[in-house]
Amino acid sequence: MAAAATTTATASYSTISPKHNVSLSTNNHHHFNKNALGFVSENPIPIRSLSLSCSRPAKHSMKVSATSAAPPVIETSKSSSDEVPTVVDVDLGDRSYPIYIGSGLLNQPDLLQRHIHGKRVLVVTNTTVAPLYLDKVVHALTVGNPNVTVESVILPDGEKYKDMDTLMKVFDKAIESRLDRRCTFVALGGGVIGDMCGYAAASFLRGVNFIQIPTTVMAQVDSSVGGKTGINHRLGKNLIGAFYQPQCVLIDTDTLNTLPDRELASGLAEVIKYGLIRDAPFFEWQEKNMQALMSRDPDAFAYAIKRSCENKAEVVSQDEKESGLRATLNLGHTFGHAIETSYGYGHWLHGEAVAAGTVMAVDMSYRLGWIDESIVKRVNSILKQAKLPTTPPEMMTVDMFKSVMAVDKKVADGLLRLILLKGPLGNCVFTGDYDRKALDETLHAFSKS
Amino acid sequence: MAAAATTTATASYSTISPKHNVSLSTNNHHHFNKNALGFVSENPIPIRSLSLSCSRPAKHSMKVSATSAAPPVIETSKSSSDEVPTVVDVDLGDRSYPIYIGSGLLNQPDLLQRHIHGKRVLVVTNTTVAPLYLDKVVHALTVGNPNVTVESVILPDGEKYKDMDTLMKVFDKAIESRLDRRCTFVALGGGVIGDMCGYAAASFLRGVNFIQIPTTVMAQVDSSVGGKTGINHRLGKNLIGAFYQPQCVLIDTDTLNTLPDRELASGLAEVIKYGLIRDAPFFEWQEKNMQALMSRDPDAFAYAIKRSCENKAEVVSQDEKESGLRATLNLGHTFGHAIETSYGYGHWLHGEAVAAGTVMAVDMSYRLGWIDESIVKRVNSILKQAKLPTTPPEMMTVDMFKSVMAVDKKVADGLLRLILLKGPLGNCVFTGDYDRKALDETLHAFSKS
Repeated sequence: MAAAATTTATASYSTISPKHNVSLSTNNHHHFNKNALGFVSENPIPIRSLSLSCSRPAKHSMKVSATSAAPPVIETSKSSSDEVPTVVDVDLGDRSYPIYIGSGLLNQPDLLQRHIHGKRVLVVTNTTVAPLYLDKVVHALTVGNPNVTVESVILPDGEKYKDMDTLMKVFDKAIESRLDRRCTFVALGGGVIGDMCGYAAASFLRGVNFIQIPTTVMAQVDSSVGGKTGINHRLGKNLIGAFYQPQCVLIDTDTLNTLPDRELASGLAEVIKYGLIRDAPFFEWQEKNMQALMSRDPDAFAYAIKRSCENKAEVVSQDEKESGLRATLNLGHTFGHAIETSYGYGHWLHGEAVAAGTVMAVDMSYRLGWIDESIVKRVNSILKQAKLPTTPPEMMTVDMFKSVMAVDKKVADGLLRLILLKGPLGNCVFTGDYDRKALDETLHAFSKS
Repeated sequence: MAAAATTTATASYSTISPKHNVSLSTNNHHHFNKNALGFVSENPIPIRSLSLSCSRPAKHSMKVSATSAAPPVIETSKSSSDEVPTVVDVDLGDRSYPIYIGSGLLNQPDLLQRHIHGKRVLVVTNTTVAPLYLDKVVHALTVGNPNVTVESVILPDGEKYKDMDTLMKVFDKAIESRLDRRCTFVALGGGVIGDMCGYAAASFLRGVNFIQIPTTVMAQVDSSVGGKTGINHRLGKNLIGAFYQPQCVLIDTDTLNTLPDRELASGLAEVIKYGLIRDAPFFEWQEKNMQALMSRDPDAFAYAIKRSCENKAEVVSQDEKESGLRATLNLGHTFGHAIETSYGYGHWLHGEAVAAGTVMAVDMSYRLGWIDESIVKRVNSILKQAKLPTTPPEMMTVDMFKSVMAVDKKVADGLLRLILLKGPLGNCVFTGDYDRKALDETLHAFSKS
């Protein structure tokens, strides 16, 4: 296993050299036996007719089932390794899959093993996460399953390695290990690892099974769910990729114990997003419980993750390929991506850029007269409580924003569509029908001319 | 537009320098208007339950509809630009699409324009095909449609450029041109261009529309139909890619007029394949008409292309993701890929390697006692008539074959499955259940120890 890493390494990955930390652990080869499970084909299935409404649905229209219909605070015995996980189902017909949420889930090998088809597994992880959890995951994959062979590939940590050169290391490892179509890829890490491993799984031999084991709040509440995978291009984020669903998502909330504070806060930007776009009661819960979240209260976190996954699963079930509704999950992301691309990966975390981007989207919504001033104030207040930025970096210019936003995936026939709040708390629109003057005013209010 | 190319350039592409011939034609920017068509979403749909039988179905079970139920020789007025094309439908539910086949189809702009959604088009072609057909295609895309803008990217010609570095040129061009999700990619060229453009379309912004305009026999009878896209890895062919269906396939048989003889023969290897695996009457027709095909008789070619597309469409409709039946289309390809990978791209064409590989698969089938000697003789005879090789290059060793075949996509849990003939002409099996001794004997009979 590669370079030792501390729990603070992820927040300072800009110091990692790009070439030499791509550690292909060719000796990390574990061999055990396993009762081979039948291969489950991944034929595409119909998805529901799309709804372009993005206000929060009433409770009775919830499309998500959770095995424990839990009150706001549910976890009581986190140390038990036999704890029954909370399960949120992502409903996509034949491609439906469960999200398991709970404490100590990596100590329950059956949860992972029931989703492994074939005898070969490739774990894709990074230099920060590997020393912390790789052995544990390999054990969970193989204990009692002596037929299973596990390979691993350890990538350098950080958004700036989410590129084609690094992705090729995954293909190299898979091909050199002679993995075949019945193998399973396992993403162990944050959003970057999940996105890259997922895209590699979508493309290797034109598609193999994969499993998400997210270890950051960002990945647990957002990026590991819903099948968006991909890599960055030097001109913009996530411009190359695939919609490709995992076999399951396993969220062991204990992995947050090793997460740096800044990473934790970054993930909360996405939690706050769900409240703003479609779930006002969740936003109100966050306003009351932000202190508990910031102090890593496990019960509060378990609830925040579950509720976030439910929101995401509902949206993805209705609009897997982002024809409309799903785009609302990108509140603040168009402004945020411009910050990440212009400022350079490694300075700000994704959630930090999204936080500043959310403030800008909310500002623009207010300038358009679509929301009350009280919402502007509440958004600023909750982001500050989460210790997230509420303005872009000082170096940002209006032209930087415009240049990156022009290649955003939400541009259609040359028209930039944005997610903006409209109406009472918990309601938004995804639209290209707005006064360009409001966008210009927001850009000038938050960045240099 | 880039370097001039002669009609014989494709057969000698090993002389093209990899770096300098990647010509990004940034000035090739055509601007016209077009009535914007509604965006058609590409939601996945159910595919049929799979049949693992691979003998030829009886006529009454044909899944393919063709608008002209044509006798063996159909085309009579090839010079008319208003000729009604033959249409073969690929039946994949919501993702179904037509294959248009006929003479002069590039002079019928409506055929292409009805499948263009959005206002932006990127034509992906190569240095050989661009000087011959790019202007014609741009005209067909834009005449009478002044809203449409066409960009183009001209790649170097040859299998050895079917790699990630060259693919990135397509992404670079698409992103620099600020294409958005409503754009359409058009593949103009042979199998390499179709595979690369298709994979680029599958991955750009997680998927945009694309159209295939195949200009070689190989692409017209096989690679442009069915949605297999991808690139090579230095360790093997087509190891990275996606299943991704086009909006339509447009086959203008007039493009064969500029195809070198060797390329023409290469495509016939796949035509012969359809007869062997599932269509004995077609094989018998080929035995009678090979001389007409070799002398480029347009009527014979129109029929061979139509019948090949019907066979391919039937198989793909039943098994889009290659769970079983579809693998039978790879008769001779496992041996052939080993030749291409070991011998180096650019020496032999794909169909040449497939021809030698087919002889090896037939030899092994005979050694297993699965077919009569008469089939062995007929296969050798028809391939020789088509001026295709019936033995691998002399440099091939048994170990070269074994090494490449070990990473073949048809390996499952370590077991190599092969397509072998079994029974009367027109019947085959896809199986890992064969005597290893027969494989060894075939490898030793056709290559050095």
